[in-house]
Amino acid sequence: MTIKISIDCMGGDHGPSVTIPAAISFVNSEPDAELILVGLEDVIRAELKKHHADAHPRLSVLHASEQVTMDDPLEVALRRKKDSSMRVAIEQVKESRAQACVSAGNTGALMAVSRYVLKTMAGVDRPAICSVMPNQKNGPTYMLDLGANVDCEPHHLHQFAIMGSVLVAAMEHIERPTIGLLNVGTEDIKGNEVVKATSKLLQADHERGALNFYGNVEGNDIFKGTTDIVVCDGFVGNVTLKAIEGVARLFADTLRAEFKRNWLSMLGALLGMGALKAVRNRVNPSRYNGASLLGLRGLVFKSHGGADAYSFEWAIRRAYDAAKNDVLAHLATMIAELMPRETTAQEAPGSTI
Amino acid sequence: MTIKISIDCMGGDHGPSVTIPAAISFVNSEPDAELILVGLEDVIRAELKKHHADAHPRLSVLHASEQVTMDDPLEVALRRKKDSSMRVAIEQVKESRAQACVSAGNTGALMAVSRYVLKTMAGVDRPAICSVMPNQKNGPTYMLDLGANVDCEPHHLHQFAIMGSVLVAAMEHIERPTIGLLNVGTEDIKGNEVVKATSKLLQADHERGALNFYGNVEGNDIFKGTTDIVVCDGFVGNVTLKAIEGVARLFADTLRAEFKRNWLSMLGALLGMGALKAVRNRVNPSRYNGASLLGLRGLVFKSHGGADAYSFEWAIRRAYDAAKNDVLAHLATMIAELMPRETTAQEAPGSTI
Repeated sequence: MTIKISIDCMGGDHGPSVTIPAAISFVNSEPDAELILVGLEDVIRAELKKHHADAHPRLSVLHASEQVTMDDPLEVALRRKKDSSMRVAIEQVKESRAQACVSAGNTGALMAVSRYVLKTMAGVDRPAICSVMPNQKNGPTYMLDLGANVDCEPHHLHQFAIMGSVLVAAMEHIERPTIGLLNVGTEDIKGNEVVKATSKLLQADHERGALNFYGNVEGNDIFKGTTDIVVCDGFVGNVTLKAIEGVARLFADTLRAEFKRNWLSMLGALLGMGALKAVRNRVNPSRYNGASLLGLRGLVFKSHGGADAYSFEWAIRRAYDAAKNDVLAHLATMIAELMPRETTAQEAPGSTI
Repeated sequence: MTIKISIDCMGGDHGPSVTIPAAISFVNSEPDAELILVGLEDVIRAELKKHHADAHPRLSVLHASEQVTMDDPLEVALRRKKDSSMRVAIEQVKESRAQACVSAGNTGALMAVSRYVLKTMAGVDRPAICSVMPNQKNGPTYMLDLGANVDCEPHHLHQFAIMGSVLVAAMEHIERPTIGLLNVGTEDIKGNEVVKATSKLLQADHERGALNFYGNVEGNDIFKGTTDIVVCDGFVGNVTLKAIEGVARLFADTLRAEFKRNWLSMLGALLGMGALKAVRNRVNPSRYNGASLLGLRGLVFKSHGGADAYSFEWAIRRAYDAAKNDVLAHLATMIAELMPRETTAQEAPGSTI
């Protein structure tokens, strides 16, 4: 079966100069993938030609006359730019012409337009952003929410845990992924009121065998790989994610500067090049690019705005894996099973998947 | 003038085997420093002897028969172990026999015992924990609160900003240190309700020239060095701090493992040893050890529990610098000036500095 992914080619800091090479490389690596390239047709075709891929049988171009910039307020993205590459790419998912969509556009706009076009999944109050971090067990740690919801109630965090669990089960083929609740200590008495109440909800699910709740985890557990999933509100998640990016950059920049300081250490860097590259590959956020917007009636993946082609290709790969592993159907089933009473009230009447 | 510091020698993962060598090294580096070594007298004297420092004129030993362990519940630290090395060390500050105290003991206990013994400073509702991070401008970024207060109201964050500002002004000799409010974006509309309300309080102080409020900052700004101080609640601060420690460890471990993989990269590491050491020194949390418990009627510094002697010495240095720069007096003055109406209600009657 073909897996079709729509790509917002105009999003991100670099637009088509990054998204098109990434799309070409990806489609050539997966024989069952088909990509719909959305954006300014002329620009996309020119870029394809540049890479001798203008006649690729599994790359199609779909014109969209506008684009959402990184600074566009939500209202502009939502109400004014109705023919933006972002929106048209998402509409492909809504109209079942693509199984997932990828954009490097501004996160707030992507979430708002996705919610508007696709609607929230029944049983989910608020979609969340879920991404992957490297850990010392050489596996991924999934973390959510990373910024969609800055003020959360316990039942929101509870829903994030369920969605994260389904995503990891489907993507990593783990039957009962472990869930950790991000906190300031591991003891039950630790934490703020929201986290303590969430812990009780998750504990109840654990006791009846519905979820594999490990308990509280701390910030360093993300990288230890203590649990498969780390749940937190979008404020904590976003701040933590950006702090991690900041410290990784400081580390990398300092390493580069120090190795350039004299010929001895430059030689050292040359000999240790393989090691340095391996470190970069291991902890480089590029490999972990591609955050999932979970809880929508369709699969949407967000690439880092500053992603290069290598990194953007990872985001496409995540979208492809999610589509191939039928994450959406698994989510719908599990949510219906675990949250029958929490069916959302703000859902648009008459909306269907 | 002599600067006297009391040291809880029994605290931390390693106790006297770390605290005593650190104390000896520190006292030898600062001719005006005097240290009071608190804990089991026999053990301390034996360790001093081992390092040929048993007759050091500026090291005195003060016996305390008990010790607070890392797992002791707060009640035990507070009510049962009245002769703990932690408590006796803090009492030296209370009784003006020392100008500051340093402990590597469990943070919760240290804060609770400090609050009990020293009391909270007039005008401060809640003491906070403030520590220092490295940044790309090669300077320190001060961040608070790092875990003392998991549920914060805007006026708490406001007080943290004032305390941080005074600390940085005194410690770094910066006249008007810049204050950033940790948030999920830089725009005013971003953030949760508490942060938005705090921003208004800080903006008002900025407009009347009382504080130098920069505005919102994001997680990566901590390491960019965008502002001198980053203010957040203790939940966010603690999770971020531990996540940073986790990613730093992952980075360092991966680097070590990769450089050991073959003789070529081992040679590379050997030649680049200086560079690798410089990186470690620059981003190593050890150099930034020594968190300040701010808002008490006395100076208390918390070392990381797992600190080695080098790192514990840094914590002593911070306490010494704070005492030498008269941080406590500056704090009292500035708080009286900026928060006259917010004088705390839960303050013990009749307590004095």
